[in-house]
Amino acid sequence: MQNFIFHNPTRILFGEGQIAALDTEVPANARVLITSGGGSIKSNGVLAQVQAALGERAYFVFGGIEPNPTYETLMQAVAFARERDLDFLLAVGGGSVIDGTKFIAAALKFDGEPWDILAKQVEVRDAMPFGSVLTLPATGSEMNNGGVISHRAKGDKLPFRSEATYPRFSVLDPVTTYSLPPRQIANGVVDAFVHVVEQYLTYPVDAKVQDRFAEGLLITLTEVGPQALAEPHNYAVRANLMWTATLALNGLIGAGVPQDWATHMLGHEITALHGLDHAQTLAIVLPAMLSVRRQQKHAKLLQYAERVWNITEGSEDERISAAITATRVFFERMSLGTRLRDYRIGGSSIGTLINKLEEHGMTALGEHGDVTLEVSRQVYQLAV
Amino acid sequence: MQNFIFHNPTRILFGEGQIAALDTEVPANARVLITSGGGSIKSNGVLAQVQAALGERAYFVFGGIEPNPTYETLMQAVAFARERDLDFLLAVGGGSVIDGTKFIAAALKFDGEPWDILAKQVEVRDAMPFGSVLTLPATGSEMNNGGVISHRAKGDKLPFRSEATYPRFSVLDPVTTYSLPPRQIANGVVDAFVHVVEQYLTYPVDAKVQDRFAEGLLITLTEVGPQALAEPHNYAVRANLMWTATLALNGLIGAGVPQDWATHMLGHEITALHGLDHAQTLAIVLPAMLSVRRQQKHAKLLQYAERVWNITEGSEDERISAAITATRVFFERMSLGTRLRDYRIGGSSIGTLINKLEEHGMTALGEHGDVTLEVSRQVYQLAV
Repeated sequence: MQNFIFHNPTRILFGEGQIAALDTEVPANARVLITSGGGSIKSNGVLAQVQAALGERAYFVFGGIEPNPTYETLMQAVAFARERDLDFLLAVGGGSVIDGTKFIAAALKFDGEPWDILAKQVEVRDAMPFGSVLTLPATGSEMNNGGVISHRAKGDKLPFRSEATYPRFSVLDPVTTYSLPPRQIANGVVDAFVHVVEQYLTYPVDAKVQDRFAEGLLITLTEVGPQALAEPHNYAVRANLMWTATLALNGLIGAGVPQDWATHMLGHEITALHGLDHAQTLAIVLPAMLSVRRQQKHAKLLQYAERVWNITEGSEDERISAAITATRVFFERMSLGTRLRDYRIGGSSIGTLINKLEEHGMTALGEHGDVTLEVSRQVYQLAV
Repeated sequence: MQNFIFHNPTRILFGEGQIAALDTEVPANARVLITSGGGSIKSNGVLAQVQAALGERAYFVFGGIEPNPTYETLMQAVAFARERDLDFLLAVGGGSVIDGTKFIAAALKFDGEPWDILAKQVEVRDAMPFGSVLTLPATGSEMNNGGVISHRAKGDKLPFRSEATYPRFSVLDPVTTYSLPPRQIANGVVDAFVHVVEQYLTYPVDAKVQDRFAEGLLITLTEVGPQALAEPHNYAVRANLMWTATLALNGLIGAGVPQDWATHMLGHEITALHGLDHAQTLAIVLPAMLSVRRQQKHAKLLQYAERVWNITEGSEDERISAAITATRVFFERMSLGTRLRDYRIGGSSIGTLINKLEEHGMTALGEHGDVTLEVSRQVYQLAV
């Protein structure tokens, strides 16, 4: 096991009816900025529950935070909050809204140009306190301190993280997910699955608990993912999906083990160039990445085959191939295409994708730093 | 899954050499009270590492906190800290030292008679900040907010917990465990194992991740427990044991599921009456408890048999019996006796044990509250 630091102070309030607990979690004298996305929280009744829980507190709603939240929109929210002298943020939505709210919280307390938090990775030492009401299980943002923010004008998409940007609390009520479109549920399952894989499928460091926790999350996703599509109002299924997606990226399973994240980096370029959903790009890249890197990941691929997919027959190579195929079949069962051509993208894009990786400094990715541009090119080619 | 709140703000610094990180974790101007137990931290060099890391900070050592730490000793530490105007506590030791330090921290900020924290369960709203350097993997106190304190004169042993008594940080360096006596390692393994069982082996609530995490911890303990005895200087083994014992009782696997704890309550009475080690009492009580309650725990016992012990052959009753036997054999492999007679205690004690349970209000224990005094009597009788 590698040395690690693990710290996660976010308070989780989980279960049906927990939105009412906002009344005890949000300071009584807070002036609240509710941040949200496209408006589904109005139609599904979540906003009304939040407003009821806030009671007599002053609150204002800032809607319209996009998927891949933009600096431009978020700085409007910063001005909106300053004008109204607000002092507590409450993100109500999915990972994009929560990521965006982390940036708003940091920008409100930042001395200087907030874009530097992203472009120059200037340290965030303070942030306005904020909580979240999660409505989409997927990214894990509700229980970590990171966010990814895009700049529309510059065409950049950059990450930041800070000890100051953990949510004070996050409310996870599985009922809020009942009205999600199947595509968002499917994307969330695949996103969480690949989050786990990026922290698990590397090389062995004898981290027994991290491995077993990761395998437990993966197996659970293979079980509840299809059920979540088939039975949208099954509380137990949605509850297991929601808690699994949170634990997939709250720092726990990644503590003390090598991490990969090459699949994410290659996927980001596909989203940037072709506008695919984040999870779609992961479903495309991961099977190809595992195939190309099967030697480097040999031992963990065998473990993954046996413990997650119960594949114990055949030669080692056959078991590894079967595990990669099982991964692809699972993504397809979740209704995601796993090849570029499924999204009408051909091999002619690959040159541009590789140039973008190079431009972004992504020339030595993966747990060994050996995913060069040439390796990435092989992965994209195999993913056509 | 049941509704739950999960919150654990303790910062974990894990791995060889992490004691040096005290220099960044303890405030630079702190006046530190180092609390410790019987003195092994002097002979094994841990205290010297701690002192080196504290550098120029003023510190004082208060040693002699007992296993089952007493109010009397801890109040001496409170006076010691007050006299020297100390403002940060650093527990260096195992669960008893950390439990005791939590109480010192609370008592130092408590307005009134600190015994009321235990006897009247008066809420602890504030505590002096403290951290820990763990040297004995067992209780999980390094990453939770509870403690159990004894009153020598009154003969009481009472728990407390508070949001204010999480360690700010805990340093977990597996190397510090190399010099532990085998009996303490064995006890720690059994203690952690039963902590998991108390939160897992109840009845199903379709909490898939909690179940798989619990099973992962149990399987890991069955693997690393015997190895930890056989190879005291095997870093990977000690590292896995240490992190597993922490995760066994940091709130995570118990969130959203029913909990039992009857085995602990029956064990406490044996310790109080006969002075056995805590883990010894658990090794005695658990197999008998599972046998007596095999109907109430039927479904989870079958799951435990299959997933932890790989028992899949035979009738349901046979599988359950085999799983209970496997549990007993594991404890015995860790060199703990699993029957009262192994410690020269006969059935004549049972009347007194039952009277003590009654005196302490332990008349409706377990996840269903159906472990009456009569059921407890059956358990003790089966454990003779």
